[in-house]
Amino acid sequence: MTTLDQTSGGAAASGFDTPEHQAKLAALYRDFDAAGMTPLWRTREGLMPFAPEPRAVPHLWRWADLYPLAARSAELVPVGRGGERRAIGLGNPGLPGDPYATPTLWAAIQYLGPRENAPEHRHTQTAFRFVLEGEGVWTVVDGDPVAMRRGDLLLTPGWRFHGHQNVSDVPMTWLDGLDIPFVATTDQGFFEFGPDVVRDTTTPARSRGERLWGGPGLTPVSAVGAQPSSPLMAYRWAHTDAALTAQLELEDEGHPGVVEAGHAAVRFTNPTTGGDALTTMRTEMHRLRAGAVSRPGRTTASSVWQVFEGTGTVVLNGAEHSLTHGDVVAIPSWTDVSLRTHTGLDLFAVSDAPILERLSLLRTHPAEQVES
Amino acid sequence: MTTLDQTSGGAAASGFDTPEHQAKLAALYRDFDAAGMTPLWRTREGLMPFAPEPRAVPHLWRWADLYPLAARSAELVPVGRGGERRAIGLGNPGLPGDPYATPTLWAAIQYLGPRENAPEHRHTQTAFRFVLEGEGVWTVVDGDPVAMRRGDLLLTPGWRFHGHQNVSDVPMTWLDGLDIPFVATTDQGFFEFGPDVVRDTTTPARSRGERLWGGPGLTPVSAVGAQPSSPLMAYRWAHTDAALTAQLELEDEGHPGVVEAGHAAVRFTNPTTGGDALTTMRTEMHRLRAGAVSRPGRTTASSVWQVFEGTGTVVLNGAEHSLTHGDVVAIPSWTDVSLRTHTGLDLFAVSDAPILERLSLLRTHPAEQVES
Amino acid sequence: MTTLDQTSGGAAASGFDTPEHQAKLAALYRDFDAAGMTPLWRTREGLMPFAPEPRAVPHLWRWADLYPLAARSAELVPVGRGGERRAIGLGNPGLPGDPYATPTLWAAIQYLGPRENAPEHRHTQTAFRFVLEGEGVWTVVDGDPVAMRRGDLLLTPGWRFHGHQNVSDVPMTWLDGLDIPFVATTDQGFFEFGPDVVRDTTTPARSRGERLWGGPGLTPVSAVGAQPSSPLMAYRWAHTDAALTAQLELEDEGHPGVVEAGHAAVRFTNPTTGGDALTTMRTEMHRLRAGAVSRPGRTTASSVWQVFEGTGTVVLNGAEHSLTHGDVVAIPSWTDVSLRTHTGLDLFAVSDAPILERLSLLRTHPAEQVES
Amino acid sequence: MTTLDQTSGGAAASGFDTPEHQAKLAALYRDFDAAGMTPLWRTREGLMPFAPEPRAVPHLWRWADLYPLAARSAELVPVGRGGERRAIGLGNPGLPGDPYATPTLWAAIQYLGPRENAPEHRHTQTAFRFVLEGEGVWTVVDGDPVAMRRGDLLLTPGWRFHGHQNVSDVPMTWLDGLDIPFVATTDQGFFEFGPDVVRDTTTPARSRGERLWGGPGLTPVSAVGAQPSSPLMAYRWAHTDAALTAQLELEDEGHPGVVEAGHAAVRFTNPTTGGDALTTMRTEMHRLRAGAVSRPGRTTASSVWQVFEGTGTVVLNGAEHSLTHGDVVAIPSWTDVSLRTHTGLDLFAVSDAPILERLSLLRTHPAEQVES
Repeated sequence: MTTLDQTSGGAAASGFDTPEHQAKLAALYRDFDAAGMTPLWRTREGLMPFAPEPRAVPHLWRWADLYPLAARSAELVPVGRGGERRAIGLGNPGLPGDPYATPTLWAAIQYLGPRENAPEHRHTQTAFRFVLEGEGVWTVVDGDPVAMRRGDLLLTPGWRFHGHQNVSDVPMTWLDGLDIPFVATTDQGFFEFGPDVVRDTTTPARSRGERLWGGPGLTPVSAVGAQPSSPLMAYRWAHTDAALTAQLELEDEGHPGVVEAGHAAVRFTNPTTGGDALTTMRTEMHRLRAGAVSRPGRTTASSVWQVFEGTGTVVLNGAEHSLTHGDVVAIPSWTDVSLRTHTGLDLFAVSDAPILERLSLLRTHPAEQVES
Repeated sequence: MTTLDQTSGGAAASGFDTPEHQAKLAALYRDFDAAGMTPLWRTREGLMPFAPEPRAVPHLWRWADLYPLAARSAELVPVGRGGERRAIGLGNPGLPGDPYATPTLWAAIQYLGPRENAPEHRHTQTAFRFVLEGEGVWTVVDGDPVAMRRGDLLLTPGWRFHGHQNVSDVPMTWLDGLDIPFVATTDQGFFEFGPDVVRDTTTPARSRGERLWGGPGLTPVSAVGAQPSSPLMAYRWAHTDAALTAQLELEDEGHPGVVEAGHAAVRFTNPTTGGDALTTMRTEMHRLRAGAVSRPGRTTASSVWQVFEGTGTVVLNGAEHSLTHGDVVAIPSWTDVSLRTHTGLDLFAVSDAPILERLSLLRTHPAEQVES
Repeated sequence: MTTLDQTSGGAAASGFDTPEHQAKLAALYRDFDAAGMTPLWRTREGLMPFAPEPRAVPHLWRWADLYPLAARSAELVPVGRGGERRAIGLGNPGLPGDPYATPTLWAAIQYLGPRENAPEHRHTQTAFRFVLEGEGVWTVVDGDPVAMRRGDLLLTPGWRFHGHQNVSDVPMTWLDGLDIPFVATTDQGFFEFGPDVVRDTTTPARSRGERLWGGPGLTPVSAVGAQPSSPLMAYRWAHTDAALTAQLELEDEGHPGVVEAGHAAVRFTNPTTGGDALTTMRTEMHRLRAGAVSRPGRTTASSVWQVFEGTGTVVLNGAEHSLTHGDVVAIPSWTDVSLRTHTGLDLFAVSDAPILERLSLLRTHPAEQVES
Repeated sequence: MTTLDQTSGGAAASGFDTPEHQAKLAALYRDFDAAGMTPLWRTREGLMPFAPEPRAVPHLWRWADLYPLAARSAELVPVGRGGERRAIGLGNPGLPGDPYATPTLWAAIQYLGPRENAPEHRHTQTAFRFVLEGEGVWTVVDGDPVAMRRGDLLLTPGWRFHGHQNVSDVPMTWLDGLDIPFVATTDQGFFEFGPDVVRDTTTPARSRGERLWGGPGLTPVSAVGAQPSSPLMAYRWAHTDAALTAQLELEDEGHPGVVEAGHAAVRFTNPTTGGDALTTMRTEMHRLRAGAVSRPGRTTASSVWQVFEGTGTVVLNGAEHSLTHGDVVAIPSWTDVSLRTHTGLDLFAVSDAPILERLSLLRTHPAEQVES
């Protein structure tokens, strides 16, 4: 069996490496170029590696760096129509030129000053907000004002009009996550302006969506049936915290319930299907109790994490990083990850796992590991 | 085209009604009988009516009658192994000989005296309990003690061990619903005894299932994936009441959300799928505000209702019945139903709609009507 | 723990068996009766047996008996409006009074004389025809004429107009299967007359449904999407036979593919979902090669089989029966079944497994056994 | 409401456009850069356009150009381990540097000389082959030899070992389609070498997969259940042609069935689900009868077409191109497309619609248009 010599473009076979042959080959490759054709045999390893070789790299941004820059921008740049949001995207160093945290995920710090208002728009891109700290902002999703408070996850599924208003005298900041890179890569994005000021400026404690869908296992009979994304726009910290607390208590009581020893986690799900709350992004909150060490593992999903509470260390492909309040971590596909904490650690996590899972592409190692 | 004369067994055709023919026909029918054969042409109308002709009839049982009888039985009959439960089934007058409320649903009043204990068993049949009043009983489902209190819906999906204990000094009574008739008709039932006393006699305020699954839209990462029936064994009245209240308030505020004017309803659903909480029975709570009148309609699902609060009237195939606290109504397939209330009315409803819906059999009239 | 004495209605407990107590108990039971109430403790074993206790019995009808009776009826009874079909239902001896083969399945011999025409109607009940022998009849389903020939399975999903015409000079007979008992028990049936003569009297070799859906894995783009039942109304013997032959050849060649040694089987499926071709009935063709013995097993599905070709024996709950061309067997839930054949055996099988499977009720033993 | 001036980076607001402010802003942007942060307000239009703005362009490659180049390469480059395949990818001019036809699809001409053998490997990427002309090659998928002939569609779902062998004395060429770009963008790719020569060198007329799955609506009972991609590895031209012919005949006979007047189309589907045959790519064959004109439309799916038979014209965003045998067309998202033909036209089409559909992203205009 003839074996190709990849370095010479496959010309090492007997009788093939004459100068005449090389000249013909060079001519062929020129003609290929002119015709817009690329031989697989010269590119196979790059196109089809033996295992994922992400250009994106594991990366950590310090909250201590991010927050002051966001705050400075508020003094220099107004929020308004056109720019739309005072959101600053975190660009993975492995993806220069694109402000993407991973090849599929966009993560940004959004900052809304006292009494500021971010105008309404809608877009194909699916979004969420995770609130590290503060309160006083309402995000208005298709006319429904949703309070944003510490620890809450707020959803904006694709193509819903939404704007934000800060009704307080203090600024507020949060993590925005969107599938901007995925939608851009697949050329799916539509965008439309809405009103310059949110259409409903009231500030109810509970959104209408929560009033209708906030009871566990309760579905309004008028809204029965699967919806692509969750009709519940707010997942409140009080519930998330209680669920994580319960998992660890059940572990103490000898019952199953947690992901692994000392490691609790909840997934934010769509009550109309039981699947992920959003179509393209998996959102979860993880809690490691003091002293816990997670089992090392990897997944082909890429993810972004933010430290909500506590401190710890994360080891990414062998490199250890300390973690503290607000730090943001980008984790490309097939990165080796493990966590440990002395103090306890609450981590918010978003990944592109739903995309991969629906296409039967998601792999994890070890196989039974939790993908986040 | 020859037309059959049904009364003569199809013998009206020319040349067919001679005495000789009649004799041959009689002989044929005798031979059919001997061979266990039945001609469709003599039974078609009975086997395949133009519209459902249930043997079951619309029927109403008064709580004022049911409760005293249940209480009397407690003085005369102990609860224990063999009989298993002090539950008294409500038999539809149209189904003599079978203690069935409808052809698919069994409904019973269960009564547990002070300090009594109903032993553990498990069965194919799916069950729920709806609590009209009282508290003090824990039902233990696969080892998880679940408090039972006024207005709560408690589930026992098929093949889960379960027993009950009353830890209080007062009796407690509730509505049991099971798919006993459906499982009997299709010959699917298995049954197995468990311990004589519930395996966990603790009396926690929240069951482990509620601790894991009680947050709206929150799924333990360790338990991701569709389950046939709900992992949440208790749907608490506080949540149900709040959801119904919210639907009516939203109507007052000009937003959609309710079934029809003045009529709110929630379905109890399985958070892992968004579908019905139980495989074979649909469970819902309906609220009509004072003065409301429901649109008349019918469905091929059969159902059983119990008045939880308030008073009103129900019209069943034209016959009006008053309704008050605790009354139980059996509604066969294709019964015309409408409700009205001066005082406001809360109704618990169970039906066999999930069976029919999965088999593409369910019909409603008018088409857009809510099936319960 | 007090143990109930079932025979005495639960009255054996200490202090409970006085004459006075017995009198009170008798009064209570009379009052229960009057109120339409039945205590579970007196009926539990009947309502909830330890394992299925079907009233239906395993039963075998000989084709040698069935066919002559069907032929005699053609001389005495015309086919026409009202009686609708010359179909004679096979009544399970365990279900006297109801012409049902099992509690969910109706099986009948239909006989259509030369040039006869069975008028159009439609009904909720789902139907199929399996052709033991002959040809010359077209069944017209929603206006699409479908030829019926030896070995073919023809479908009539619920609520489709259908009639039959025999365009030949010889009679034709076949097995009809319907879910009449299930639809009757659940009160779901609607029925409507159509034209007295089939609306399309042409006799094409292939129906329109086959022309659109007859290519393996090919879906008309205009008809993409799941449909409850198969859009393909005819499953031709040539394809069925080829598939069974291939399975056994693959076994000979050392490849997997068959159910068990010497036992091939195909399921008739809905190309829009991959699930059963019909909503309520599973249809399969099984082939045992000469000398094969099937592994004994049982399932909670009830079924009806018809011998298509070959001879053999079936053991039903220990009783052995010989099988030959055309014989029909009724098999209730949880019947022990095994087959053997010296000559080879082709068996058509229909069961209610789809109903049970969708409700998570189906059990088989051994667990991995094929349910048919 | 302050309005942002996008061109100046949001500095047009009153009081904001002083030199001092500009200096501070410049410093902020430098610090953002250093921190890997990108303000949305400076990039929003690029990241989130009002409608898809693909970099890929509509493009047409002539078979008259492609084939000779592929043939020349066979004289100069052997096939073998390392390069793996003599496949030449078609690079969209709008995506320089990447040999991708669209952002998600790879399309290549593969050429296998007489008696040549392409070694076995497997990869995450899903592949198909569409055969424009010729025969004599067997592709061996997980050990099952599958004949490749004119008009056939052959599948290689992800992670199946596969190799090809040409057992004839003439070369053969075909269109390869893979989701290489999508798998690369999302970092999902794994790759593994198999044997250097296909593991089964027999050349059966029908593959084992076809023998098991080739009957319409027939499922081996041993293989019941949904599979992510089709178990049928070959969709034969005879079936495809017959289905298209039937659709147009049914149109002539006055029955529905075709996509639009004179336009027939079949989708290649997975018989275990009824969905697309492959997880990430939709494959279809379209036929326009002589004289037909397709309704102009667009979809957010990107696609690649190859002319199988006939001639015609395609108008892509207003630019008209003639089409003839073998021509390949790349169509990015949201391209306006219409077709016309004087002679009749058979077109093979592949798109990324399954990815988009599962994520609720797919849009078409007009809404009811067929996405291909």
